[in-house]
Amino acid sequence: MTEAGTMYIPTLEDMLEARRRIAPYVHRTPVLTSRILNELTGAQLFFKCENLQKAGAFKARGASNAVFGLLDEQAVRGVATHSSGNHGSCLSYAAGRRGVPCTVVMPRTAPQAKKDAVRGYGGRVVECEPSLSSREAVFAEVVAETGAEFVHPYNDPRVIAGQATCSAELIEQVDELDAVVAPIGGGGMVSGTCLTLSNLAPKVRIYAAEPEQADDVYRSFKAGHIIADDAPNTVADGLKVPLKDLTWHFVRNHVTDIQTASEQEIVDAMKLIWKRLKIVMEPSSAVPFAAILKNPTTFAGRRVGVIITGGNVDLDNLPWN
Amino acid sequence: MTEAGTMYIPTLEDMLEARRRIAPYVHRTPVLTSRILNELTGAQLFFKCENLQKAGAFKARGASNAVFGLLDEQAVRGVATHSSGNHGSCLSYAAGRRGVPCTVVMPRTAPQAKKDAVRGYGGRVVECEPSLSSREAVFAEVVAETGAEFVHPYNDPRVIAGQATCSAELIEQVDELDAVVAPIGGGGMVSGTCLTLSNLAPKVRIYAAEPEQADDVYRSFKAGHIIADDAPNTVADGLKVPLKDLTWHFVRNHVTDIQTASEQEIVDAMKLIWKRLKIVMEPSSAVPFAAILKNPTTFAGRRVGVIITGGNVDLDNLPWN
Repeated sequence: MTEAGTMYIPTLEDMLEARRRIAPYVHRTPVLTSRILNELTGAQLFFKCENLQKAGAFKARGASNAVFGLLDEQAVRGVATHSSGNHGSCLSYAAGRRGVPCTVVMPRTAPQAKKDAVRGYGGRVVECEPSLSSREAVFAEVVAETGAEFVHPYNDPRVIAGQATCSAELIEQVDELDAVVAPIGGGGMVSGTCLTLSNLAPKVRIYAAEPEQADDVYRSFKAGHIIADDAPNTVADGLKVPLKDLTWHFVRNHVTDIQTASEQEIVDAMKLIWKRLKIVMEPSSAVPFAAILKNPTTFAGRRVGVIITGGNVDLDNLPWN
Repeated sequence: MTEAGTMYIPTLEDMLEARRRIAPYVHRTPVLTSRILNELTGAQLFFKCENLQKAGAFKARGASNAVFGLLDEQAVRGVATHSSGNHGSCLSYAAGRRGVPCTVVMPRTAPQAKKDAVRGYGGRVVECEPSLSSREAVFAEVVAETGAEFVHPYNDPRVIAGQATCSAELIEQVDELDAVVAPIGGGGMVSGTCLTLSNLAPKVRIYAAEPEQADDVYRSFKAGHIIADDAPNTVADGLKVPLKDLTWHFVRNHVTDIQTASEQEIVDAMKLIWKRLKIVMEPSSAVPFAAILKNPTTFAGRRVGVIITGGNVDLDNLPWN
């Protein structure tokens, strides 16, 4: 265990323990390749398909690690979080597998499909107003009432250790990677990637990709301290949340560079991956490939892992329609 | 080798030889599962994802076997076919890998994307009028001019032996299957499935699934002889073609039953697979799952392989939009 102030930084041992713990509850997702996408970029691309993960997102890893790491006496009181995205449904999935209660606080304005996903795995949705103050007040009530364990979507060492299992698989599936590119919102996946690669494959460069219209990580990285966006708006709706102290620690210390892509570049990259790899994935998952297309000299001639983070998209509202 | 009249019936040895021959040119495609789809059907479903195959369809297997089985003196003259679907682009793919010419005769009214796919792999498109007589006349000219080897989309033992490699992989990837369901148009995939399973796993039941609106195989199977549809129209556009003598041989001798699904059932099944398995696939590939949903008692409690045949779909014209 490593302490940095009051912040517990998850370690390689935490990742290895997470891997053993969550193995029964998550998929070892496949890695896909495309000759045509390789020719287009001049790189050798290896797409790690977490859209094919349980509950449709890598967040099943971190959520499962948090839920199955609880002592029985904690677990009976259940888990709770606030999320209008994949973390909510993935936490509900993991809690359902353990058979313990899960409460997700969500703005009443969140898409019906997101609420249905939480409930589909057996979780409870508690609605709040779409404001930070309402969310915090409602969430505090939930915890007071249930005694549930709070599992933050990303700023939680258990969650990061779980996400870190993804790149542990990737480096077993693909030899001699030169780089990995992952999308960044709050930084949970990127932090997990940093945790694993800095220990097990320290020569692999780690790039984080984000929307130009939500480029808080890019600006934080240049500034040397966390900067949050003011009401970002992007088609990559999983990437709007800011860094927190734990994820900033990993980004600052282990990420080689931050790359950004425009909305149109993200949508074009998304459609091209759907067409060529034949997979359904979220706009957020297209940002790394958009960045690779935009920065060919960084990646040409290299073996590059690309994390496809999730596949939960509204098929009735595709962004190119 | 087995002879049945003048018709050469491909054998297990042909499949094994195909498997060695095409290994460098095709993917061993993954098998995906979904707890939610299992709960919905009461069966254990194993989706064999040929939509993730090279060129986006299982037809890369048969085409590669035909192309790489040619003697050098044949191969230099190239290959030719008539197809407005996946066989044309897959033959072009295989010819491109061997570096020999490929000509595909296609109605001038065929979708631009289909023509582009053939050309994208280096093949030549020769247009004909959208009639059988024009197609035959133009195709005869092409062969006379080039001396190219004709590779039929399905009524060809080399093609069937290639398609047969798919279920050889499937039974290695999944133990103790009770049944396999594949879509049927001309019958190439189903014939290959019959070839492999009747030899290597004879207890596995084989079901063929087709659109109600193109139910020629259903009617042929009941009648005991080939019946062709008169201008069938279905969203499952890969399944409009009729059986031929070689594929009829396999269907008649080895298929347990033919099941059909309506247009709406096909589209609903397609959308549900996209949503749950996070894969892009063609309407034709949804017909088996539609049949499973429609015939729950046939499959409940069983371990069922489901062949997802291809992923080449127009993302700008999805059938639920």
